[in-house]
Amino acid sequence: MSEESTHEHTEYTGSIDLKSDHDKQPKLAMGIDLGGTNIQAGVINEHGEVLGRAKLKTDADSGFDAVMDRVAAAARSACEDAGVPMSAIHTAGLGVPGPIDPDKGVVVEAVNLRWNDAPVVMALSDRLGVPVCADNDVNVAVYGEWRAGIGNETPNMLGVWVGTGVGGGLIINSKLYKGAHHSAGEIGHMILYPGAHLGSRSVEHNCSRTAIAHELIKLIRSNHPSMVTSLTDGKLHKIKSKVLAMAYEQGDDLTRTVIDDAADRLGIAIASAVTLLSLDTVVLGGGLVDAIGKPFVDIVRDSVRREVFPESLRNVSVEASVLGDDAGLVGAGLIAFEELWK
Amino acid sequence: MSEESTHEHTEYTGSIDLKSDHDKQPKLAMGIDLGGTNIQAGVINEHGEVLGRAKLKTDADSGFDAVMDRVAAAARSACEDAGVPMSAIHTAGLGVPGPIDPDKGVVVEAVNLRWNDAPVVMALSDRLGVPVCADNDVNVAVYGEWRAGIGNETPNMLGVWVGTGVGGGLIINSKLYKGAHHSAGEIGHMILYPGAHLGSRSVEHNCSRTAIAHELIKLIRSNHPSMVTSLTDGKLHKIKSKVLAMAYEQGDDLTRTVIDDAADRLGIAIASAVTLLSLDTVVLGGGLVDAIGKPFVDIVRDSVRREVFPESLRNVSVEASVLGDDAGLVGAGLIAFEELWK
Repeated sequence: MSEESTHEHTEYTGSIDLKSDHDKQPKLAMGIDLGGTNIQAGVINEHGEVLGRAKLKTDADSGFDAVMDRVAAAARSACEDAGVPMSAIHTAGLGVPGPIDPDKGVVVEAVNLRWNDAPVVMALSDRLGVPVCADNDVNVAVYGEWRAGIGNETPNMLGVWVGTGVGGGLIINSKLYKGAHHSAGEIGHMILYPGAHLGSRSVEHNCSRTAIAHELIKLIRSNHPSMVTSLTDGKLHKIKSKVLAMAYEQGDDLTRTVIDDAADRLGIAIASAVTLLSLDTVVLGGGLVDAIGKPFVDIVRDSVRREVFPESLRNVSVEASVLGDDAGLVGAGLIAFEELWK
Repeated sequence: MSEESTHEHTEYTGSIDLKSDHDKQPKLAMGIDLGGTNIQAGVINEHGEVLGRAKLKTDADSGFDAVMDRVAAAARSACEDAGVPMSAIHTAGLGVPGPIDPDKGVVVEAVNLRWNDAPVVMALSDRLGVPVCADNDVNVAVYGEWRAGIGNETPNMLGVWVGTGVGGGLIINSKLYKGAHHSAGEIGHMILYPGAHLGSRSVEHNCSRTAIAHELIKLIRSNHPSMVTSLTDGKLHKIKSKVLAMAYEQGDDLTRTVIDDAADRLGIAIASAVTLLSLDTVVLGGGLVDAIGKPFVDIVRDSVRREVFPESLRNVSVEASVLGDDAGLVGAGLIAFEELWK
């Protein structure tokens, strides 16, 4: 499944002198959110404002080089949209759907893209002619939300992104915290039910959109009625966040029961993280949260506040991302400023 | 239950110029571990070495002022033991069995001592004539173990202390991490069994010495044979760590089953923390760990490594404290250097 690359795994950043010519120009970065389905690029200023944007299909089947060509094309289109030349962009940040080795600038594994050890930093630096930094998609989204969204100013914040899986990112002492193996924030892989069988122990196994769809399908197949059957034309394997949100909004009992239960369980896991880290701010994002919104967030918040220790943490803020789908590209641009503009 | 104090809740630190006269003298701090039963004091140098020590009974019933008098007396005895005058000590650190409000220098609550809002920092500064800082007993022990014990050099570390309860402390980016409400590290209050009834949900409810004793008593009373009955002369409410360690060492089946199970559950909770924070180092301490030692630590380690994500964390180090009972006073002294010697 892995795609071999002929690129050397060396770091590219640092070979371009950022400041020499540009001190008087406005600071602009390119922020790029590379997903399994879409590439989103935006021209970002220091405040995290999006001055121009572009969206292209990822077309993961076309292979690493072709995908990276489209990433570069999206960046150029975003410049056009912003009315600035590519030469006005001094640095770029990239969010990718998988763990990063920051020393080598490679994506260790991106299942959606079928990449292993993909040298994204060098590939994009070559194409755009600017220094590039990369991090996983949830980290960049959480960073964006912290800097330019709901988390502004708080020194410590947990972000939890719920979609196909459950990912997370941590801001600690006003920095994105990576930990010993750059994998910090993996709340989806915390154990929620010790002793349960392997496929139902973790947070992700209980609270992701995948887990919710799986549970719904199981219940529908054992003759529980649900409008999800008609909303998907009986193709239950096609349950996406939008379908879930529609059924939820229209009051489908089965959907509400399953989703409310998942939200409550997610809150319990988040409460453990809040207790361990004494956090006052949690932000929720990702496809499922964006689709269902307030009812989901309300249940998570109630559950977190019920389970935290000590009592002083019961006023913990648990809110939905305000940047929504933009969190990734905004965060990628802001990380590029933070890491590369020195 | 609370003891009113007439002391004002103001901070004392900073009114003494530490460096003016002492630049050429060896740096010495007083480290004090104030427990519900004993007060331990030690003269500590910058490397965390104990140059002299003293131990006195706490006698919590005698009240706040009398206890603080004994804390000061223990400090003076430690100086005598080290062969240095009290005037050679420039700063003191105090570990207390309860949460601290660091701005006010008070112990918010210490159940063992029956204290609420007890102004320990000012009380001890007044008695010793040096600046004092205070933190909870587990934080100071974890800090001591990190600086002068097993954790040396690693930027991020979790310490888990198992005794009457289960406490924890976190080193993040080479600093003791406190979080929004100074309560970080409370791994004992993470939820281990969501949905279980209130007294059996948390890590502490499943893995503390109290929980182990409770489970043993329940089983013995339902006619499971155990040598714990004879070791305690039938006074089962008197099960302490030493009795558990004796029964464990002598191969008592019931004791082994219950303790091994608690160690395994503790490992699952620690694994969730290691996953969330991407940690490569965990240290275990406290009365139960000190008493049982290697077999307990081995089971915790196996459980942590089995449950962590991603795979790269499976080599996480999980070891027993090397400072043992000294971790608290060493850590208290080293925190005093860190916080007050500026």
